[in-house]
Amino acid sequence: MISPFNDEYFMKKALEEAEMAYEKGEIPVGVVVVINDRIIARGHNLTETLNDITAHAEMQAITAAANFLGGKYLLNCTMYVTLEPCQMCAGALYWSQIPKLVIGASDPNRGYRKFGVQLHPKTEVKSGIMETECGDILKRFFIEKRNLN
Amino acid sequence: MISPFNDEYFMKKALEEAEMAYEKGEIPVGVVVVINDRIIARGHNLTETLNDITAHAEMQAITAAANFLGGKYLLNCTMYVTLEPCQMCAGALYWSQIPKLVIGASDPNRGYRKFGVQLHPKTEVKSGIMETECGDILKRFFIEKRNLN
Repeated sequence: MISPFNDEYFMKKALEEAEMAYEKGEIPVGVVVVINDRIIARGHNLTETLNDITAHAEMQAITAAANFLGGKYLLNCTMYVTLEPCQMCAGALYWSQIPKLVIGASDPNRGYRKFGVQLHPKTEVKSGIMETECGDILKRFFIEKRNLN
Repeated sequence: MISPFNDEYFMKKALEEAEMAYEKGEIPVGVVVVINDRIIARGHNLTETLNDITAHAEMQAITAAANFLGGKYLLNCTMYVTLEPCQMCAGALYWSQIPKLVIGASDPNRGYRKFGVQLHPKTEVKSGIMETECGDILKRFFIEKRNLN
């Protein structure tokens, strides 16, 4: 039997979160945290809604996942995120010791890889999963924003 | 008249926050955020208490200050922090656009300066304010921790 659960499956779920951010007028970035093919935390960017620059999708999902697990380290977890994390979120992922990070679109301007930000040595990174779809929602958002102003 | 308000004054207030963390068995780091010589936010490390690696003193104080200001950018604010911020907190400070950061003790292992983490171009940094006191509380904490184990 072929499992329905693969990287594309979970990145689609992260994209659904990004869509929710989009609907709220937030920069559309979404995240899910998965353990044994089960989603234990979801998050989407809420910086405008909460008036809080720390309310990135990843930060919320890290807190929610730790809450679910009852421990602060995201052992055995994989995070799927539609956009390459920024310095702050990558720094948080470092502390979380998450073993796997799957990234949709790259962020050449604000992504952690542009700087020297280090993930935890345990963290394996996979990039470019549904890159086009994850990037398109951001392009759509910024084009719409520009046209409104 | 000599103003009682200078960097040492506010770093002492941040140290009081670090003491509160110490009392709770948390790595003792404290923060205050100041605007026009008035403290608008305080925070101390609560990662153990909250089971949340994102609950660093700085992160909480950034959220609290934004809440107080009613806006997400920490315009005209100065953050006093007893220990050099980590990658995550420096990344958050980048987004906050805070104009001034005053650091007590350096953190050569986990501090943001070891990595390539960038603060906002607007942010002026001052280091080494009450460095000994800010470092001593950490040393005291780790010696005690070691002796208990």
